[in-house]
Parts: sequence; structure tokens; C-alpha cells
Amino acid sequence: MRRLKTIGIATLSISLATAALADGHVTEDVAKAMNARNAHMQLYSFYLGPLSAMVKEEAPYDASVAGAAASNLAALAGMDQYGYWVEGSDASIEGSRAKAEIWTDGEGFAASQMALTEAAVALSSAAGTDLDALKAGFGNVGKACGACHEAYRAPRE
Amino acid sequence: MRRLKTIGIATLSISLATAALADGHVTEDVAKAMNARNAHMQLYSFYLGPLSAMVKEEAPYDASVAGAAASNLAALAGMDQYGYWVEGSDASIEGSRAKAEIWTDGEGFAASQMALTEAAVALSSAAGTDLDALKAGFGNVGKACGACHEAYRAPRE
Repeated sequence: MRRLKTIGIATLSISLATAALADGHVTEDVAKAMNARNAHMQLYSFYLGPLSAMVKEEAPYDASVAGAAASNLAALAGMDQYGYWVEGSDASIEGSRAKAEIWTDGEGFAASQMALTEAAVALSSAAGTDLDALKAGFGNVGKACGACHEAYRAPRE
Repeated sequence: MRRLKTIGIATLSISLATAALADGHVTEDVAKAMNARNAHMQLYSFYLGPLSAMVKEEAPYDASVAGAAASNLAALAGMDQYGYWVEGSDASIEGSRAKAEIWTDGEGFAASQMALTEAAVALSSAAGTDLDALKAGFGNVGKACGACHEAYRAPRE
């Protein structure tokens, strides 16, 4: 049920950006950037899913799947996010939860992103080893996600 | 206008997968895989956009943007696609254009993916050099995209 909800929310965000574009509330560039960053977040969620299930021991540990999912997370986290955080795409517009701090504290935001990249790279080395290594690495990725969301993402309304 | 259409199509694909899930036509795993691969394709499109504009000389050549976009394409193309092509997610279901050949010709499909990875890695080395290098590398990425779509993606209905 929680997974169904996640799919619904990703779809909702993308639909909202498109709706805002159709209404002329945002420029095409803002709508594209929002759709792209939502797609990027959706992929994080997709690859965190099987890792989370293994960490919670709801699914059997599978070294091959864990390694592939963690490598994909590291590839995503290592991507240059230059195109996502365009001016005018903060939480003041429909479908965005991006806090103003992303723009007013660019250095902190970049450091927060770098913390995720480092945690994801470490996880990609650890995930295929064994369940304990996966658990430790996964915990650090979760902390990096949470810290960034806490500082730079507005609560759901 | 063409860009607006692209955004609309990405949204439509994702909405269709969610709608198919809500209708009980597909399993949750199939809907998640379809949404994830659509998000992945959407990110290809997002990073191809500025490169295409430079290649067509509709936008000025910018070595930094070209390099970042091409590196992101290479990161995406290098990701392990193990999770996307789950059984039951072919074009027989709503919102999917995945041909049966993806499953009946897994070797060819993997080779097609590898061709894109190689072209994208070459582009990521070339894109930041100058416009001519970008044009050559971009052409090869376009050919790899087209070849895979031709062989493994059903025409739009």
C-alpha cells in the first residue's frame, strides 16, 4: 500500500508541473526542470526499494540485485544537477516543495548533495558483500537523504 | 511546441501506467518498472535537449553545459537496467511500447544498450571540447537511440 502511494505521489508531482505549465503559471523551462528532478527522485526511490526490503529482511538478501541497485544509486547521485534547480521553481509554485534555501544557501545545498554522493558510492562498494555491509551503507544513504530533505524540502501540505 | 509535446507524452506514459495499475490490469511491480523506465527515458530527453539545441545551432555552444549534460547521459546509459524490463510489461498493456523482442532477443537488446553506453561515454569525452566534436559525438548517440527504438520499441498508436 505504501508503495502504491509512492507511485501516486510521483505521478501527481509530474502532473502538477504539467498542469501549472498549461495554466501559464510557470515557464516551459521551469516545468521541464521540475519534471526532470521529479524523475530523478523517482529513480532514487525505485533503486532504494529493493535495498530497503533487504535491509528490513522483508526480502532475501541478493548480492547481485543489491550491487546493481546500489551502483545505479551511485550513478544517479553522481550526476551534475545543474539543470534541476532553476530560478522560479521553488515551493511558491504548484507541485514544488523546493525551499528557498536551495538558492540562498547554494553552498550548503551542494555539500548536502555531495554527502549523498559519498554515501551512495560507499554503499555501492558495500552492498554486494553481505547483508551487514548493506545495512550499514544503506543507513548512511538514508541519513544523507533525510538531512537534505529536512533542510531543503518543504513539508507536504 | 515540440518540447511541450514531449513533456505531455512523458506525463501521459506515467499516468497510463498508474491508471493501468488502478484498473488492476498490471501488477504493482510492472507499474513500478514502467514508471521507472519512463523516468529514465525522460532524463535522457532532458539532457539531450540542450545538446540538440547546440548541435542545431539554435543555442550558443557552451562547453560547460555540454560537458555536464553529456556526462549525465553517460551516467544514465551506464546504469544497469535489470529492473526495467520485467515480464508482462510489453506493448500488449496500456502505456507500454516495449516490443516482445526485448524478451525474445535479450542478447540483441543488451548489445543495443551497450552501443548507447559506448556512444554516450565517447560523447562525454568530446562534448566539452568544441562544437564540431559535440556534433560528431551527438550524431552517434542519436544513431544508437534510433537503432534501439527501431528494433525494440513499437510505433506510437
